[in-house]
Amino acid sequence: MTLTPAQQLAATDRAHIIHPYLPGSAEERVIMTEGKGCRLTDAEGRSYLDATGGLWLAQIGHGREEVADVAHAQMKQLEYFTSFWEFSNEPAIKLSQRLASLAPENLNHVYFTSGGSEGNEAAIKMARYYHHRRGEGSRTWILARNKAYHGIGYGGGSATGFPVYHEGFAPMMPHVSHLTPPWPYRTELYNGEDPTDFLIAELEARIADIGASNIAAMIGEPIMGVGGMLVPPADYWPRVREVLDRHGILLIFDEVVTAYGRVGEWFAAQHFGIQPDIIVTAKGITSGYIPLGALMVSDDVAEVLLRDHGFPMGYTYNGHPVAAAVALANLDIIEREGLLARAVTMGEHLHNQLEAELGHLPIVGEIRSVGMMLAVELVADRETRTPLPLNPARMPHDVIRQETGVIVRDSAHSLVLSPPLIMTEQEAKEAATAIRSVLERTTPTGEIK
Amino acid sequence: MTLTPAQQLAATDRAHIIHPYLPGSAEERVIMTEGKGCRLTDAEGRSYLDATGGLWLAQIGHGREEVADVAHAQMKQLEYFTSFWEFSNEPAIKLSQRLASLAPENLNHVYFTSGGSEGNEAAIKMARYYHHRRGEGSRTWILARNKAYHGIGYGGGSATGFPVYHEGFAPMMPHVSHLTPPWPYRTELYNGEDPTDFLIAELEARIADIGASNIAAMIGEPIMGVGGMLVPPADYWPRVREVLDRHGILLIFDEVVTAYGRVGEWFAAQHFGIQPDIIVTAKGITSGYIPLGALMVSDDVAEVLLRDHGFPMGYTYNGHPVAAAVALANLDIIEREGLLARAVTMGEHLHNQLEAELGHLPIVGEIRSVGMMLAVELVADRETRTPLPLNPARMPHDVIRQETGVIVRDSAHSLVLSPPLIMTEQEAKEAATAIRSVLERTTPTGEIK
Repeated sequence: MTLTPAQQLAATDRAHIIHPYLPGSAEERVIMTEGKGCRLTDAEGRSYLDATGGLWLAQIGHGREEVADVAHAQMKQLEYFTSFWEFSNEPAIKLSQRLASLAPENLNHVYFTSGGSEGNEAAIKMARYYHHRRGEGSRTWILARNKAYHGIGYGGGSATGFPVYHEGFAPMMPHVSHLTPPWPYRTELYNGEDPTDFLIAELEARIADIGASNIAAMIGEPIMGVGGMLVPPADYWPRVREVLDRHGILLIFDEVVTAYGRVGEWFAAQHFGIQPDIIVTAKGITSGYIPLGALMVSDDVAEVLLRDHGFPMGYTYNGHPVAAAVALANLDIIEREGLLARAVTMGEHLHNQLEAELGHLPIVGEIRSVGMMLAVELVADRETRTPLPLNPARMPHDVIRQETGVIVRDSAHSLVLSPPLIMTEQEAKEAATAIRSVLERTTPTGEIK
Repeated sequence: MTLTPAQQLAATDRAHIIHPYLPGSAEERVIMTEGKGCRLTDAEGRSYLDATGGLWLAQIGHGREEVADVAHAQMKQLEYFTSFWEFSNEPAIKLSQRLASLAPENLNHVYFTSGGSEGNEAAIKMARYYHHRRGEGSRTWILARNKAYHGIGYGGGSATGFPVYHEGFAPMMPHVSHLTPPWPYRTELYNGEDPTDFLIAELEARIADIGASNIAAMIGEPIMGVGGMLVPPADYWPRVREVLDRHGILLIFDEVVTAYGRVGEWFAAQHFGIQPDIIVTAKGITSGYIPLGALMVSDDVAEVLLRDHGFPMGYTYNGHPVAAAVALANLDIIEREGLLARAVTMGEHLHNQLEAELGHLPIVGEIRSVGMMLAVELVADRETRTPLPLNPARMPHDVIRQETGVIVRDSAHSLVLSPPLIMTEQEAKEAATAIRSVLERTTPTGEIK
């Protein structure tokens, strides 16, 4: 049998690539060959609607030629030199200035990485180092939350709050303590109390238990992504910040998913009206056109890190000139096209579409969103809120893609959407209709008819 | 006072960027604006000779337009989509096939990252997970060496063997044990024994101590980079491999620096004639034009990782199409221009130049090299081999750059060179002469007259 070119590519893939989360027994491959706006095309010529933005990062959409042109020019001019020590380059400098102007007030210092996992390793190290340099070396504990996702390095991965990210990888980094996540839909987590009251009391109790003088930082995604787009009550972060301040504990915001317009502001810290000490970003900073991450660091923390011999860690591609140039072009587009405001209006529109198409289905427990982060939580029973049983061999998001070409993601019993911020109303309708076409045939046992 | 544009950039840099290893008190900035071949130009128009290849990675040299053209075309076509689950793309598939054809025989599987630190986190996780999946979950210990550098994630960073990378960051990941490095010049490390005999006996004793059934893997740079280009005796790796095999312990080769031509072969594993179970690569895979890393994984390890639900970790930019396309263009150039062979001949030439210019200086203890990795170890006294005292405010490599424009790096009391593999004989001469001009004025107290 002669293989088509697409089949040949798939065979080569199966022979040589270890994909994250894909068993060797899986035969299917979807080989993307082209992207434009919210549309992707695969090697067999099939068209898809990208309602995930890749992995939640394609803010400006696919195939923007002006971004490619900027990368091209910079790569020809100076593709790379190190930014360790006193070495630097113009795009990195301009980007640092731009980011400082966009970030909450006191976050004026930038530390570059190539992605979110690298960023969370660095943030945990910064927090501990900050206390170490100030003579409070006992402050080593990191507070995190169950259902948190902080990447897969051994530091951030230890703060990540899902068993699957620890099983078989242990021993993890010590001195991490996990709290209950803010997930108002799951009232059963809070003993019938107000969720924030419960969570703040738990936080205070945990701090008392470990001892404030042993705690370096709390790390949290402002809206938990992999956990299923969990939106906290509006008073959660301000009250957490107040408790941490009182105990001299730093707050690290993991905004790898939420920064750069996703929630309608440059940073989710602005949405919640608080000042973290460190913000970890990546993804949307370049819309994925090239790997890059950046930590925003407060004046106070930076001053301490820069004492003595400085902050003793750096990743090879720190301040990569092409990545920085691409980030600047990406931020230009977000600004010029008003994508922050668009994330709010299109997010609401998409939310309403989902509500209209899915709101009546018995397996839909809750539809929630902030900006262009949306989730449809699936349940077996609306009264008990029992999670919908899932069959790994026939998951709703896979069937939706296979039948309709609309790409959404499964996250912890929710279907999650994080489309490019440029999504059109027609595309929003297409996504909502596609999801309905499968969920309306899905039974409370998780079977898709 | 009006600032020049270069001074303005430097001021912005100081206000906003946290550079790795740079104190806040440091005023100087070297802002690179252009690169071509082995030459760089800064914002003040000064020209430099890059004898470090950035951070040991610019195999093909700076400013290659054809690489920029490839990046441009791919970025316009498909800049990014995820490679998690069943999603894939053509450049990543082609790169995986190419890498499998270049790597030692049984290393046919590729796992993508965006750099070396991400790679070492993944390698440690793979090793533990491999044993876990095979029912030997007690195998969690990682053997490493003092003076090793495996990046700065909490996993690889724990295997890194320098106190500066742990101080203030602890607690690190548990279950790491450090052995003595192979560094034949430092005969005092081996009690007068043959270095390999000593090191193998130590390895056997350590395994007996921890218990083979508790050890997952040994991780090592085939030639230790940050440690000062430490070249092991030829029988070291084959004998280590034999011991590990006997005890069911995996061997992870950290080839972030050594792979893709640096030592005159595609992989240093080939130079030493051994088969690791996992090879971690990055840097030279794209010559730094874009962040990328790749792990080469053996058939045996891959088969286990791909069981059940597959390998449960992935970095956002896994299999990034632009990065993969750039890597293919970079490998094309290395192959077409015969840079593997050139690393050997130019490496010898540069070594001979250094020997001729520096060999007679009393503060030069040893000049050593493999291919285009070279080191000049500095001592206060050739007899005692006491390391040369260094003044952080006036280091030889800084003075060399400031006075001559030649960029070399300081690594643990050695000056190290890892130039682009395209370096010319004239540039080699220039580098050696520049180093001499400063070292010949450096006293055994470390003072530069």
